[in-house]
Amino acid sequence: MFGLTILGNNSAIPAYDRHPTSQAVTLNEQVFLLDCGEGTQMQLTRYKVRRSRINYIFISHLHGDHYFGLIGLLTSMGLLGRENDLHLFAPAPLEHIIQLQLNAADTKLPYTLRFHALTEDAIIADTDKFSIECFKVFHRIECYGFIIREKKRLRKLDRNKAIEQDIPASYFEKLKDGEDYIKPDGTVVKNESVTNPNVPGKSYAFAADTMYKESIAEKVKDVTLLYHEATYLKIHSERATDRFHSTAEQAAMIAKSAGVQKLVLGHFSSKYEKLDEFLTEAREIFSNTDLALEGVTYLL
Amino acid sequence: MFGLTILGNNSAIPAYDRHPTSQAVTLNEQVFLLDCGEGTQMQLTRYKVRRSRINYIFISHLHGDHYFGLIGLLTSMGLLGRENDLHLFAPAPLEHIIQLQLNAADTKLPYTLRFHALTEDAIIADTDKFSIECFKVFHRIECYGFIIREKKRLRKLDRNKAIEQDIPASYFEKLKDGEDYIKPDGTVVKNESVTNPNVPGKSYAFAADTMYKESIAEKVKDVTLLYHEATYLKIHSERATDRFHSTAEQAAMIAKSAGVQKLVLGHFSSKYEKLDEFLTEAREIFSNTDLALEGVTYLL
Repeated sequence: MFGLTILGNNSAIPAYDRHPTSQAVTLNEQVFLLDCGEGTQMQLTRYKVRRSRINYIFISHLHGDHYFGLIGLLTSMGLLGRENDLHLFAPAPLEHIIQLQLNAADTKLPYTLRFHALTEDAIIADTDKFSIECFKVFHRIECYGFIIREKKRLRKLDRNKAIEQDIPASYFEKLKDGEDYIKPDGTVVKNESVTNPNVPGKSYAFAADTMYKESIAEKVKDVTLLYHEATYLKIHSERATDRFHSTAEQAAMIAKSAGVQKLVLGHFSSKYEKLDEFLTEAREIFSNTDLALEGVTYLL
Repeated sequence: MFGLTILGNNSAIPAYDRHPTSQAVTLNEQVFLLDCGEGTQMQLTRYKVRRSRINYIFISHLHGDHYFGLIGLLTSMGLLGRENDLHLFAPAPLEHIIQLQLNAADTKLPYTLRFHALTEDAIIADTDKFSIECFKVFHRIECYGFIIREKKRLRKLDRNKAIEQDIPASYFEKLKDGEDYIKPDGTVVKNESVTNPNVPGKSYAFAADTMYKESIAEKVKDVTLLYHEATYLKIHSERATDRFHSTAEQAAMIAKSAGVQKLVLGHFSSKYEKLDEFLTEAREIFSNTDLALEGVTYLL
């Protein structure tokens, strides 16, 4: 399972029961939280995302609608007795803001919060199951996009064939890495006879908040699913540029140019109660576009 | 109109669609906000409390469930173009926490936020319409209760009688203060002939978070309406004391001893999904008790 669940799809001021930015990306047993606007902990409960599975949180930038819900989530995790380390990736000033608030409450979290300051385009997490990159986007203050890439082993094991060949289970991981097996009597079992080629891993890119910049297409090239902010419609494109935001059309241009499989739009301005036109404008450029709707999970 | 609207009635962790502490007290044209847990700005919208009428905010203490929604409300007020001064009364460390978050966002509020640090029992606001006191309560960290007292003029004007006596409207305020009127020909109009005695002003006291202390009854003596925290039921009274909280019964004992007219209970622990027993336990001691229910306005 690799899926994006939208917890908040609105920009600055909450409106029409739309909440500030937050997303939960589920990749097998992990949940990655991307941004954490006010009310995120309630939205996690509402949409039944298990907070105990969140081990990584990424904050794009320090405008309040992207992180004011974080301190509440962190302290609630503490009250609920979390013990596992939690990794937080964010612009540097957030560490002190959190610490001040914990100090004011005379609170010590029962788990270790590992703070990682974002500073430049980089691979910020790398395990055998996934890798995560951040890249600079173009906003009024320092702001980062993120890419979560699923890692697949080279080969898919055909378990029945391996057992038929008397290969011990302890060797299965090596088979997935493409190695042959040599039996005690010296017979070689060719890897291709017990495995199949694997499909490539999928990838999710988050680009918000940002004004339109063609160079973003390079960063998110060929990802499976792209979330790109679309705060405004075309008629307000001047305002979009003034405020370092994008229009639906501009988001679609990035998606098209990057050759992604699917685009999801979000971070809608409270100016708009109805959102249909975002879809109409984007689909003229890039047809496989959807609106980020709260509570909906978009599968990769 | 003097009324208490509950925006959040739950303790630490939001649960069962109950929110962390926040209350809007409406006194004629003013709205006073007492505490501001996460999600308060959404609750204000949900229950149609006009944030433009909020000129005073009071924060009892710096546990997150009492103030994590404040920074979001302050910045939203800015985005909505507020220009009027806003008075914020809270423990001292909050000023720096707010400033750090505004700096991190490179945000300058378009209105003046006047921060007043709470330090001791005192009258913290005093106008011709109302006065506000704070008093120390007994919690794990520095914590204050508040009393909002409506001020009434000495006398109620009988407008028709005053007009009959040819008293100019410019003199009406003096009549309300109890003065006689002397006509141009020297005739004295006795105050009692054009006014009636006024009823005393009403008062609302907020006591949370606190453990049970008989001395609180002295502080809130004779108020019209008392909100007292009741985090636990009697069976968990040991836990209540350990955590510097009160039970429903203890809140009722304070109400009875203080001789208040009505008691409202809130700050319920997430341990309890159903709240009926809070009412049962409190009413055995003090019958005029209600539960603080979100969205409900309790008139004084």
